Amino acid sequence: MPHFSRVRVNIILFNPDEFPTPAPNRASLTLPRADPRAAHIIDVLRRKPGDTFDAGLVDGPRGKATLAAISPDDASLALTFLWGAPPPPLPPLTLIIGLPRPQTARKILNEATALGVSEMHFIATERGEPSYAQSTLWTTGEYRRHLIAGAAQAFCTRLPRITFSNTLTATIAALATGQPGAHRIALDNYESPAPLGGHLKHISRAPIILALGSERGWTSTERDQLRAAHFAFAHLGPRVLRTETAATAAITLSLAHLGLV
Amino acid sequence: MPHFSRVRVNIILFNPDEFPTPAPNRASLTLPRADPRAAHIIDVLRRKPGDTFDAGLVDGPRGKATLAAISPDDASLALTFLWGAPPPPLPPLTLIIGLPRPQTARKILNEATALGVSEMHFIATERGEPSYAQSTLWTTGEYRRHLIAGAAQAFCTRLPRITFSNTLTATIAALATGQPGAHRIALDNYESPAPLGGHLKHISRAPIILALGSERGWTSTERDQLRAAHFAFAHLGPRVLRTETAATAAITLSLAHLGLV
Repeated sequence: MPHFSRVRVNIILFNPDEFPTPAPNRASLTLPRADPRAAHIIDVLRRKPGDTFDAGLVDGPRGKATLAAISPDDASLALTFLWGAPPPPLPPLTLIIGLPRPQTARKILNEATALGVSEMHFIATERGEPSYAQSTLWTTGEYRRHLIAGAAQAFCTRLPRITFSNTLTATIAALATGQPGAHRIALDNYESPAPLGGHLKHISRAPIILALGSERGWTSTERDQLRAAHFAFAHLGPRVLRTETAATAAITLSLAHLGLV
Repeated sequence: MPHFSRVRVNIILFNPDEFPTPAPNRASLTLPRADPRAAHIIDVLRRKPGDTFDAGLVDGPRGKATLAAISPDDASLALTFLWGAPPPPLPPLTLIIGLPRPQTARKILNEATALGVSEMHFIATERGEPSYAQSTLWTTGEYRRHLIAGAAQAFCTRLPRITFSNTLTATIAALATGQPGAHRIALDNYESPAPLGGHLKHISRAPIILALGSERGWTSTERDQLRAAHFAFAHLGPRVLRTETAATAAITLSLAHLGLV
């Protein structure tokens, strides 16, 4: 799986650990020609020596980069980071998601990051498939590549915070302490009195915690836990949506409620 | 490209021309083992002889099917269609979309159909890539497969109406006559006074026509045409979204405005 898809991303992101600490205003960096970013800069963005492109430091400033030289083995870059104003914060939206099949999780990681969320907590659910947690997506750290691709698409340097080995109980307990004033909403196609869009019309503008079950939905035990933690239930209409479509739809409605889209 | 992806669809759709006219209440049908639907029923849904699954007739009734027998060459089905109440109408939402690259168009065809739209008009735009119109997606009728896959995902038999060889001028003229009372909104990240979610808060609940430009946006000539045809402009926030993400987001907000999600 490439670091970046063939889709043109809008900013090339670098990790702070690729530079001396503290990261400098100006730096040079040599990428192996096989580094997916080098391939993207040369083959997709079609930059030639002397050309510039937008660059950024993960969770740090944006900047500009110049492709200084290309050799058969590597690409040399000259970077300038615009330290100063910190990057804008991510939208105050937290997702709780029943661990989906890895290919679905990849799409959600990318797309939710592009749309803009602060936190994503992937949890084991009673009706979920336990083996999904053993995917190389999670065990090798591959998930971070999809966050970076989503942030690069959105022209953003900030990545959401991710957890993927906590229970629903632990996750809602941590959020009860960490985000006491947030609206809590669980998507549920079976026991919801109203569509999510209608529900959001009647609540104040405040941070949102949104819980999506696994493909096969919540159990009654999980519904009880969510209710006890003050989650309201909402649905996305009678049409059956893929998990990643439901996630994008629910994130979009939440961002609209926050005045952002 | 398979007829269905490996994603489990919720209803298997059949074309009316696979049956005698008028289509009967009960019918038997033999699918070659290589038909993607036979593969899906046997390999993804894991049905065995005697097992049933949900079936439907495109733009017609839902029903049930039984996998009667499997041979090395084919799969025999027994179908019952529930003629009676016509399937519910699609949401009163029409898309106009600058022809995107074929891989993006495939995603939009599938996802917009799953979410629920009545019409999709793919148009050549001034900043679009003319060669996209020559893709086999359009020239071979492949686009219909993606509509069927989206409808099957949504447990719906109705397909949206598609055009892909009209100009912006012709499309907005036809819609001016055909849908005189619809709200007209064009997405534009550069010249929009408000986000789409905010714009929708201030308008009545009525059918919506939503125009999305090509990846590189509208020209000033196209903006003038849209303004003259009473399109309001709205944006989706400062984050740069892929065309297919923007389409899903805008469709979702429109469906929420219609009270559907």
